[in-house]
Amino acid sequence: MRPTITAFESSPDRGRGLARDTRVRWALEEVGQAYDVRLVSFAEMKEPAHLALHPFGQIPTYQEGELALFESGAIIFHIAERHQGLLPVEAAPRARAIGWMFAALNTVEPPIVEREQAGYAERDRDWHQKRLPLLDERVRVRLGQFAARLGQADWLDGAFSAGDLTMVSVLQRLKGSALIAEFPALAAYVARAEARPAFQRAFAAQLAVFTGGQAGG
Amino acid sequence: MRPTITAFESSPDRGRGLARDTRVRWALEEVGQAYDVRLVSFAEMKEPAHLALHPFGQIPTYQEGELALFESGAIIFHIAERHQGLLPVEAAPRARAIGWMFAALNTVEPPIVEREQAGYAERDRDWHQKRLPLLDERVRVRLGQFAARLGQADWLDGAFSAGDLTMVSVLQRLKGSALIAEFPALAAYVARAEARPAFQRAFAAQLAVFTGGQAGG
Repeated sequence: MRPTITAFESSPDRGRGLARDTRVRWALEEVGQAYDVRLVSFAEMKEPAHLALHPFGQIPTYQEGELALFESGAIIFHIAERHQGLLPVEAAPRARAIGWMFAALNTVEPPIVEREQAGYAERDRDWHQKRLPLLDERVRVRLGQFAARLGQADWLDGAFSAGDLTMVSVLQRLKGSALIAEFPALAAYVARAEARPAFQRAFAAQLAVFTGGQAGG
Repeated sequence: MRPTITAFESSPDRGRGLARDTRVRWALEEVGQAYDVRLVSFAEMKEPAHLALHPFGQIPTYQEGELALFESGAIIFHIAERHQGLLPVEAAPRARAIGWMFAALNTVEPPIVEREQAGYAERDRDWHQKRLPLLDERVRVRLGQFAARLGQADWLDGAFSAGDLTMVSVLQRLKGSALIAEFPALAAYVARAEARPAFQRAFAAQLAVFTGGQAGG
């Protein structure tokens, strides 16, 4: 059954691919599942109809027949579980790949979002400049630990998995910051993932919303 | 096979149950799986042997034969998937319960950790008092949205699930703050979960590490 996801009608990142629908589009493209997109405005996201789908008033949501999901990590996991290609079949590598999804979302992403959020929510506060080195350092610690684990490997654990997809999506939030450039192996890891045809298609589809092209995939 | 988890040799929360091994102990108790505990010091957590198990140098880790996992969300999910009782059998409710796990860890926990972290890492900075209302408000927004969804229900989606276990574990971090008291339904939700015999056993086991009793379960 062809699923429908939601995405920003007007993405605050202006099509840079950082809104969380991109991760879901990417997962769908990796497994070859066509999908529809319903665009929502910021006003609509706070209305009861959308809150019934997403209690925190965000995007993306995912609808597939009677099933309604929210939270990009959960949606990526659902797609990975229902199709071949994003999770190893064998139990132990599968559990480890799922582990990397949780690590990306609960250990690596929070300091990155905190730093990003300070950049728009606290930019005009007198403490912002003084706090920046502290925010950078929190991110740097996680990047250093992650780079040490990744080493010279192409992907986290053998073949590309939903763990890599989620981790790369988190690291992409650092694009344009000097932090990711401090870790060339991580910059190369992100670039390697972005070269995948499935990512290219997902990126083009989300950009088309901003430039006025076709939103579906 | 009896798994071994790691926990703090000397928990910074002094046995209040807020270290992340408590979540994993709770999940193991819910499904009736006995386990062993290996305590690690802060120094050991930064050594290569522990970093091989947990690249971010934290606890808990989970070892079961050849399988090694880290990240509490991933471990809870693994336990829930391998045993009956923490995830619905039917596909759609199961996907929703997993969704709540991700929502707890990626949407609700980050502002709670950010507020908590500021309390120890930025307490002596001159901006800390001025930032507190902003940190409180970020948490309050999420609690309000979550309370609106929970409504008067006992649990998130029918029977108690790994989604509730994860969400309650996240909300417990607010214990002793006035924020959770602003949402009586959430305080009652946490209390209801803590009354479960499995939680009681998990809490007692982690407390015993601090008071010098038996660590295993």
